[in-house]
Amino acid sequence: MSNSIGEKFQITTFGSSHGKALGAVVDGCPANLKLTAEDIQKELDKRKPGTSKVTTPRKEADEVQILSGIFNGKTDGTPITGIVFNKNQKSKDYSMFKNTPRPSHGDYAWMMKYNNYDYNGGGRGSGRVTIGHVIGGAIAKKLLKTQNIEIISHVVQIGDVKAEKQDFNTIKENVEKNPIRCGDIDAAREMEDLILSVKEEGDSVGGVVETIAVNVPTGLGEPVFSRLDGDLARILMNIGAVKGVEIGLGFDVVNNKASQINDEYIIEDDKVMSKTNNSGGIIGGMSNGMPIVSRIAVKPTPSISKCQDSIDLEKMENKKIEIKGRHDPCICPRVTVVAESSTAIVLADHMIRSGFIHPSDLEK
Amino acid sequence: MSNSIGEKFQITTFGSSHGKALGAVVDGCPANLKLTAEDIQKELDKRKPGTSKVTTPRKEADEVQILSGIFNGKTDGTPITGIVFNKNQKSKDYSMFKNTPRPSHGDYAWMMKYNNYDYNGGGRGSGRVTIGHVIGGAIAKKLLKTQNIEIISHVVQIGDVKAEKQDFNTIKENVEKNPIRCGDIDAAREMEDLILSVKEEGDSVGGVVETIAVNVPTGLGEPVFSRLDGDLARILMNIGAVKGVEIGLGFDVVNNKASQINDEYIIEDDKVMSKTNNSGGIIGGMSNGMPIVSRIAVKPTPSISKCQDSIDLEKMENKKIEIKGRHDPCICPRVTVVAESSTAIVLADHMIRSGFIHPSDLEK
Amino acid sequence: MSNSIGEKFQITTFGSSHGKALGAVVDGCPANLKLTAEDIQKELDKRKPGTSKVTTPRKEADEVQILSGIFNGKTDGTPITGIVFNKNQKSKDYSMFKNTPRPSHGDYAWMMKYNNYDYNGGGRGSGRVTIGHVIGGAIAKKLLKTQNIEIISHVVQIGDVKAEKQDFNTIKENVEKNPIRCGDIDAAREMEDLILSVKEEGDSVGGVVETIAVNVPTGLGEPVFSRLDGDLARILMNIGAVKGVEIGLGFDVVNNKASQINDEYIIEDDKVMSKTNNSGGIIGGMSNGMPIVSRIAVKPTPSISKCQDSIDLEKMENKKIEIKGRHDPCICPRVTVVAESSTAIVLADHMIRSGFIHPSDLEK
Amino acid sequence: MSNSIGEKFQITTFGSSHGKALGAVVDGCPANLKLTAEDIQKELDKRKPGTSKVTTPRKEADEVQILSGIFNGKTDGTPITGIVFNKNQKSKDYSMFKNTPRPSHGDYAWMMKYNNYDYNGGGRGSGRVTIGHVIGGAIAKKLLKTQNIEIISHVVQIGDVKAEKQDFNTIKENVEKNPIRCGDIDAAREMEDLILSVKEEGDSVGGVVETIAVNVPTGLGEPVFSRLDGDLARILMNIGAVKGVEIGLGFDVVNNKASQINDEYIIEDDKVMSKTNNSGGIIGGMSNGMPIVSRIAVKPTPSISKCQDSIDLEKMENKKIEIKGRHDPCICPRVTVVAESSTAIVLADHMIRSGFIHPSDLEK
Repeated sequence: MSNSIGEKFQITTFGSSHGKALGAVVDGCPANLKLTAEDIQKELDKRKPGTSKVTTPRKEADEVQILSGIFNGKTDGTPITGIVFNKNQKSKDYSMFKNTPRPSHGDYAWMMKYNNYDYNGGGRGSGRVTIGHVIGGAIAKKLLKTQNIEIISHVVQIGDVKAEKQDFNTIKENVEKNPIRCGDIDAAREMEDLILSVKEEGDSVGGVVETIAVNVPTGLGEPVFSRLDGDLARILMNIGAVKGVEIGLGFDVVNNKASQINDEYIIEDDKVMSKTNNSGGIIGGMSNGMPIVSRIAVKPTPSISKCQDSIDLEKMENKKIEIKGRHDPCICPRVTVVAESSTAIVLADHMIRSGFIHPSDLEK
Repeated sequence: MSNSIGEKFQITTFGSSHGKALGAVVDGCPANLKLTAEDIQKELDKRKPGTSKVTTPRKEADEVQILSGIFNGKTDGTPITGIVFNKNQKSKDYSMFKNTPRPSHGDYAWMMKYNNYDYNGGGRGSGRVTIGHVIGGAIAKKLLKTQNIEIISHVVQIGDVKAEKQDFNTIKENVEKNPIRCGDIDAAREMEDLILSVKEEGDSVGGVVETIAVNVPTGLGEPVFSRLDGDLARILMNIGAVKGVEIGLGFDVVNNKASQINDEYIIEDDKVMSKTNNSGGIIGGMSNGMPIVSRIAVKPTPSISKCQDSIDLEKMENKKIEIKGRHDPCICPRVTVVAESSTAIVLADHMIRSGFIHPSDLEK
Repeated sequence: MSNSIGEKFQITTFGSSHGKALGAVVDGCPANLKLTAEDIQKELDKRKPGTSKVTTPRKEADEVQILSGIFNGKTDGTPITGIVFNKNQKSKDYSMFKNTPRPSHGDYAWMMKYNNYDYNGGGRGSGRVTIGHVIGGAIAKKLLKTQNIEIISHVVQIGDVKAEKQDFNTIKENVEKNPIRCGDIDAAREMEDLILSVKEEGDSVGGVVETIAVNVPTGLGEPVFSRLDGDLARILMNIGAVKGVEIGLGFDVVNNKASQINDEYIIEDDKVMSKTNNSGGIIGGMSNGMPIVSRIAVKPTPSISKCQDSIDLEKMENKKIEIKGRHDPCICPRVTVVAESSTAIVLADHMIRSGFIHPSDLEK
Repeated sequence: MSNSIGEKFQITTFGSSHGKALGAVVDGCPANLKLTAEDIQKELDKRKPGTSKVTTPRKEADEVQILSGIFNGKTDGTPITGIVFNKNQKSKDYSMFKNTPRPSHGDYAWMMKYNNYDYNGGGRGSGRVTIGHVIGGAIAKKLLKTQNIEIISHVVQIGDVKAEKQDFNTIKENVEKNPIRCGDIDAAREMEDLILSVKEEGDSVGGVVETIAVNVPTGLGEPVFSRLDGDLARILMNIGAVKGVEIGLGFDVVNNKASQINDEYIIEDDKVMSKTNNSGGIIGGMSNGMPIVSRIAVKPTPSISKCQDSIDLEKMENKKIEIKGRHDPCICPRVTVVAESSTAIVLADHMIRSGFIHPSDLEK
């Protein structure tokens, strides 16, 4: 089950950077959801490289086809298969990486574990593998939309440049207006400058991506081991390059006493609210009706053109490595859509599990 | 499956704060592991309250019995059941919380989701529920010990007091010497002072708990959705009060460029090493042979004696709440054993899954 | 997960014939189901031996306690633990079976697989292990009752004695009136005679147990691998001594052409019915609204007092074996409650999975 | 997870009769298994219709491509995707079945459950869906072959014509020599005659398919709920048209006393054997080293050209149905490869689970 995730809304992904195709099988999506390839394509386009100076100039067309699961324009309760065929996958020679793992990439572990590692473009360790996440996430987002749930991921920090807090709708608008996918237009400009200067150096920089989901009903999540925060932490940490996950205040809880950050209740317009949302919409492992807020730490892309120390595993001797090519000087803008997709997959799964969406049929 | 975790080494926990018993069924532990109730008891004693001024003065005996799974002093491949019967569970009146959820506790979500919430002592939302984690973790630790794997969790920060970095063996020794379970004796004293002063105020404080596992072989973890970091993040975030999880450098990756933090390889004594361990022992979602390092953000215990705003859910009106009783002014010292147990459960599971431990029999 | 079954309504069982206790943890039962220990006890009493001449005269009190999951007399959404403590488990010397497996029992496979087999009373291979099934099944039956679903298992054949077909209510009444738990009183008498005569010979006899579930809505089961018939076949075949499972006509389909056994549709009182139910209530792996009918082949109890050939595994030499003691000359009457329980567990699971019962709360 | 099966060796299938493609994603196959599309193609060719007079004369090319999971001609530990693109899927008008379910087909349940049923050629309820099983099974068989395990499925009964018992190698040879895939050449001729005469009548006939697996080591299967017999029963009953599953003697146990059918042990050439194999190679839910023998009851293909009673679900009135087209007068010969594949999937899964095959790498 290592390439599947979700209990009721389950995705199974396959494919590698330079293989024939990449894709996802989505099982458990209720019947009667209107769905077209365009719904998926528009999400895939967000993770596509080559769209600005801050990402790799590599061109990847990444056209998705739906091979199963749709009848009369709507899901029919059977597995939905979305697939992207790789093009020009033979474009480059990767043989210098065959026995020489790139520092802070997964190469070394893949080599040791499986003894037959497809080192071309990182194989299944490549960022291209998130095409599967995005296919699943696009369907999840469409499903959640029927319940009025919306999700946005945006960059809130690159290096030492931080975005100002914005409200949900502003973020939604602003992320489409800048290549950083940052909710704060001013910060976005500074972030862009930083990324370009780091790129000049042949280096890379990391950042923080925040995800906010609104209109999530109270009661998603199943203590004690399928808690909503645990399931979110897993899927987010599973994204390559992510080294930390926070919910609500996250690590900042350490700098506060309970009296400063407890979310006190209040009744407004006959509705229960909390006065603050330091819990990030999750208490006791379940959603509490407030926006669900997570943040992930994204490391600098480990592929850099600077010379690094590595080894030759066949000869068992030290060896220098220079990773040429057109790498992302900062992967954060492209990670936003993966974080959004991953969050959507978890929420869709729990919406069905908790009985908010009928498992067989949306119309019921 | 919401109360089960693990694929091959799987624990299922049950019980609540004031019910008859709490426990865990551990399924998938290989046969022929020597195991006694004492092995579990000594771990449970570490999470026991009432042992110092920095925890609640409540006394909980928490004596564990093993009801199944052992034959001739060794596991026999059948499910191991560890159980702790609650004593004096009727000691207190919790009825004031019946319709009034405590801020930043799970009460409100439990009430809304299940419509029949055992509000006594927090029911199954209580910290006592981690007895199940510790039973499972104690068995996992014993199993890992047969493979030379050791794990230690320790407090590295309380409020603004941070511990100095120590080596593994020093931490192991030091945590037993101070009530904070901090690896740095000097910092421990400052932390103790801080906790006691916060306790005086009727408030509470949070902190950071770090877990280090050594001698883990290369290749644990299964990309792309059962990665070792994802599975650790899930189980750690599932611990009550945890709001953030980091692996290796964690959120600090943001403050560095790739050239500063990439873990370069080197061959030493014919063994592959990385010169640094900023990845925290996990690359591409798999262990790489270096120590596995995680950190969790633990929020201040939300139960404080200060007056707080809440609501009466039956009358749907605002209502003040004061949570009397003997609460932990800082839960971090007791969380260490839960983090250690949780980490052990994930590692034991992956050791079997990856074929390092034979699933039916240790002797093979 | 080898001791767990079910996806949403999940039972995990533990314990062995002569260990301290046997039981089940039931996870995923919706909140607000009224439940008492008596609900479970009355089912356990049906599988209790020593109640008639056709079962073993061994006395087993088998008193169940509920240790968790109930609040104010109703389930609260947390795991329900039912437990039976073994009494007098040291009553007999089983050491002659330590290295000598009983023919057609599981002993040999347990010994080889785990290398530490609890041979006392068959260990976890014992029929006593079905106490866990019955605990889970009793809860499942109570849950199904809220949806008007009823299940009855009854003996339809012992050796060459077959019961006449009866309607559901007659079966329900009759099974309580004879020790065979046969729905046909006349056949029951013949069956009893047959069993007693086989018992005289120091031998044992098998039979067929049929299970009928009524009022199951259309649409339970999830093709193509969680079909209702597949899930029933698995849980029924998992019962010790079962060597065959049939749905509807079962193996008799071979003796008919499609035109003779196809279930043609008809509309009666504005409801869709099939004129016959040769499909046994399941088409395409899903329930179709007709009664769900299964049958299992139960082999003769392999424990017989006649001398048999076996081996000494330590000395690796042939050795005769005589299994003394008070064995069931026919296990079928006691298997009925296990088949009923197993069927209930599968139906309860699928009722929740398919959205007919709200997963968190019966009241919604 | 309704379209996935297996714990370690897991297949997820997708696609429908008249959609764009059908296929399977195989996750958990260890690395370093040599695998080509031809390995799968030769199995698919066995289930292909149009190869003899006893199957439908429909032509289906069914060419498989492998889209992922192979590197340098060997599996690389990542998911293997096998796919068959449908051709000419718009060849026929199925609209008469839109509201009129075919008797004893799954149509009615699919319509009720999902409210958007692809009625073209039976949609995902079609026999074509077993293409996914066969893709998974072909890989499983190749994997088992590395451990010397072989599996053969053959027809042992059609209507009232029964095959004589043959030994494993004779069956293997004979099934390739007759269109029935029967291990007994003489019986095969009679079976062929029977099928052709039933076909003349516009009717269909069922049969029994037996599967034998040899060289399976002792100890596959995990009591009490992942027993080998339970897992086989599930996957076999999940095959469309199957209404019964037997292991070993199956329902014939009822006609014997224990003393007649208990499998007594004997030591031969220093190896433990049982003198008979009435248990069908499985005791206590685990393999015992003897050949594993199962039989399934396959119903007559419900699609027949004779006029039948059905209904119009839109108008809610009775309506006659005649199913024209070129249907299989007996599906048994084509079911053999599906039974063989299904058995291989379960055995491959348990070989890995039980530690007989290293989960990451065959070479270890």
